[in-house]
Amino acid sequence: MCKINYSPYKSKIKSAEEAAMLIENNDILGVSGFTKAGDSKAVLPKVAERALHEDFKVTVLSGASLGYDTDANLAKYGALHKRMPFQADATLRKSINNNKVLYVDQHLGQTADMLQKIDTFKIDVAIIEAVSITEEGYIVPTTSVGNSPIFADKADKIIIEINRTLPDSLIGLHDIKVLKKQPNREVIPVLNSTTRIGKTYIKIDPKKVVAIVYTDIPDSPAVISEPDEKTKAISDHILNFLGKEVDQGRLTESLLPLQAGIGKTANAILSGFKNSRFKNLTMYSEVLQDSTFELFDSGNLAFASASSITVTEDCYRRVFNDFDKYKDKLVLRPQNISNSAEVISRLGVIGINTAIEFDIYGNVNSTHITGTKMMNGIGGSGDFARNGYLSIFACPSMSKAGSISHIVPMVSHTDHTEHDVDVLVTEQGLADIRGLAPVERARLIIKNCVHPEYKEQLLKYFEDAYKLGGQTPHILKDAFSWHTQLKTKGTMKIEELVASYS
Amino acid sequence: MCKINYSPYKSKIKSAEEAAMLIENNDILGVSGFTKAGDSKAVLPKVAERALHEDFKVTVLSGASLGYDTDANLAKYGALHKRMPFQADATLRKSINNNKVLYVDQHLGQTADMLQKIDTFKIDVAIIEAVSITEEGYIVPTTSVGNSPIFADKADKIIIEINRTLPDSLIGLHDIKVLKKQPNREVIPVLNSTTRIGKTYIKIDPKKVVAIVYTDIPDSPAVISEPDEKTKAISDHILNFLGKEVDQGRLTESLLPLQAGIGKTANAILSGFKNSRFKNLTMYSEVLQDSTFELFDSGNLAFASASSITVTEDCYRRVFNDFDKYKDKLVLRPQNISNSAEVISRLGVIGINTAIEFDIYGNVNSTHITGTKMMNGIGGSGDFARNGYLSIFACPSMSKAGSISHIVPMVSHTDHTEHDVDVLVTEQGLADIRGLAPVERARLIIKNCVHPEYKEQLLKYFEDAYKLGGQTPHILKDAFSWHTQLKTKGTMKIEELVASYS
Repeated sequence: MCKINYSPYKSKIKSAEEAAMLIENNDILGVSGFTKAGDSKAVLPKVAERALHEDFKVTVLSGASLGYDTDANLAKYGALHKRMPFQADATLRKSINNNKVLYVDQHLGQTADMLQKIDTFKIDVAIIEAVSITEEGYIVPTTSVGNSPIFADKADKIIIEINRTLPDSLIGLHDIKVLKKQPNREVIPVLNSTTRIGKTYIKIDPKKVVAIVYTDIPDSPAVISEPDEKTKAISDHILNFLGKEVDQGRLTESLLPLQAGIGKTANAILSGFKNSRFKNLTMYSEVLQDSTFELFDSGNLAFASASSITVTEDCYRRVFNDFDKYKDKLVLRPQNISNSAEVISRLGVIGINTAIEFDIYGNVNSTHITGTKMMNGIGGSGDFARNGYLSIFACPSMSKAGSISHIVPMVSHTDHTEHDVDVLVTEQGLADIRGLAPVERARLIIKNCVHPEYKEQLLKYFEDAYKLGGQTPHILKDAFSWHTQLKTKGTMKIEELVASYS
Repeated sequence: MCKINYSPYKSKIKSAEEAAMLIENNDILGVSGFTKAGDSKAVLPKVAERALHEDFKVTVLSGASLGYDTDANLAKYGALHKRMPFQADATLRKSINNNKVLYVDQHLGQTADMLQKIDTFKIDVAIIEAVSITEEGYIVPTTSVGNSPIFADKADKIIIEINRTLPDSLIGLHDIKVLKKQPNREVIPVLNSTTRIGKTYIKIDPKKVVAIVYTDIPDSPAVISEPDEKTKAISDHILNFLGKEVDQGRLTESLLPLQAGIGKTANAILSGFKNSRFKNLTMYSEVLQDSTFELFDSGNLAFASASSITVTEDCYRRVFNDFDKYKDKLVLRPQNISNSAEVISRLGVIGINTAIEFDIYGNVNSTHITGTKMMNGIGGSGDFARNGYLSIFACPSMSKAGSISHIVPMVSHTDHTEHDVDVLVTEQGLADIRGLAPVERARLIIKNCVHPEYKEQLLKYFEDAYKLGGQTPHILKDAFSWHTQLKTKGTMKIEELVASYS
């Protein structure tokens, strides 16, 4: 039960409430946690509660999203001044969109570098979940690494939260290195998904540790719906496409390291690889979902590198109760290494991410509902889309009983530009837009990806615009007419098509 | 005069006309040339002329833009099917915007990788300018390297154009390596601007050489206007900003390697470093303009790495008549290494590029006039903005007698998203938007960068949108109203401000 192998810390054991009192108003916190995995479940919720009783606000930097209630309560109790680089919580989302919380939506691979470049976010306190403490007082993290190494490095004070629900067999899972700031930045010598370049613990200055807190709360489980007809169709289109790439000699049957975003669609796409021709696959991703472990069990996946493991309750039990079964096939890295431009470009990662909408020229919106309201954030999708070997974006062609087409004339917010998108896919089909000029892309995307109910009106927009000329034909006054009509009439469908664009 | 040190080529000496006849209709050509430097001045113009007399079209891939008349005549004579990855010619631009030529506007760092990934652009013939041929029959390129190494590697046939106007002292200037395709991609061991990792020539299979052509035409000279009041002000704002970064201990006085885009503004910005506190500077850029040599002469610049040297007639004479003076301070690399994500992120390049327009949230349009018409192309700006240490974009706040504001509610085309832009600057001032939420950015950009004549109406757009809420407040139906009004009324200025947005 005692997971502290460094005796000086024993005098620092505190309750979560006591530890939360070590935070000062207006502090900047760097907290562990990446898509719910490995977050602070004891101290940070108590930090949130302080705002109920006193004038108290903090800025919270994390790896990515935090567990249930944590971001929600931080927002609900008014404890948040600024939040970055990612969130995925309904309550916090509301506060962000009401401009009660400032939200910086940042590439997940860039937060660590930002902390080295500017002192705007000087970390006052790091709160980091650990499975164990080494004999030197160093931290062995739990189900994610995220930005914890840089937070611990930069923080004035460190609070360690020891999670007693996780097995010691997690020790050795992690590969941790803090990169030097430029001009002394070293080569990141990751040559394939399996390469280890660092230590299995986060090296810290033990004098900075101000509290050790025990917790017995497991990670908030992921809830992922089973693949349905649409997500299965999307998965099939991608598998077919990759199969053809193999047939043409462009890739081998082990492909290149896969990255997949989080959520139902990404999970379904990856699950599809179970019963596929692709063998000896690897992942160089940021989050591992249930599908990763299904792929391990199917024998098709050889190794997975990421920054976190975020799985459903069933999968969590299965994996962590029998962790030795998976341990030698896994490595968790800091997110500036899992999402490193250098490594992603060298390895040639195949990035598969989901879009909120995309447009006829291949621009992708992955963050904003009708251009203004934040959904979650860009996450790591940009890190992989920008520098990977193949950048695939997927979404359903249509939703909300046909009132929304996810392929639009112009995206209402651009997260991934036409220059960074290779393949677009919906349940209708797939468009490989590599090497195509914008007008070629438009015709292919409309033909292959758009729902039949929207095909005619999208083609009309394009043809009307095309008559006016331009490398990227648009009718600016109508470019968002689908989005504005959705607001006024509840649907993107245009009734009288003939007179629609002028 | 004989620059061929490999005798088997002597039987292959042909006239430009004869060499041009070796190209077949519908061929895909890979040609040397990067922003006018080192392009084919003899053969490619003759290739263009063939379309005057016969049914003849080719696809042309280059490093970047070509010299005067080449792209123009290819377009004028109808010789072009598709052009990529960059152009900057008025005649070709017109053909592109009239959809007579298909144009793929691509990150300059990604063309070589694309050729390794897909065979859509199987190079039939490479046409490469050389200063000399080695004893093994290998090519020593001239004033640019561009994509020539990968073109030569992939081509079925090679035409070498030997330029007799350039001194042999160029031999040794280049550092050339063709990277392996993933999964065998190696570490690119460039640890600073000066590192050499390859050979001084392009290794080719001599059997592929079908023609050797002599030319005595020098590179088309750059024409760059002297810094004016506005570009000087922009330069001063950037120098002040970088000075403050040094004062705060974030950078040293040698900063980090600089990259600067092409053109008057970028040249003026760089010229500003001549009389600055910054010493022992380095460049890791793609094009070197006059300002680079001014900086060498001033003693402030220690070394410059790029893919081409594109200078004015005066500077050209000065540099190449006395090349030994500069040679040990220069290296020219293939553009997938000068613009490599891996190297740019490792070195921490400070990227300074120009924008056509940017918006209140920090998105940048660097390619399209009012969202539809192509100007030049994204060039390498995305390679540096995406992966560098600092991503700075500059443009004048206003132009065309006040009818155009270059800061708009929403950019009409997005080339660089809010996630990839750190600093925005006009002659009015500079906005450092790192770590800011969108609404914070908007207020700072409006305050610091916008021309006084547009400040009120931009603030009104923002405040009206802000009332409606959202992470990125917008009124979609009005987001492009400035652009559409420019078309209908000839100005972005709104007369009656009160009723402008609803």
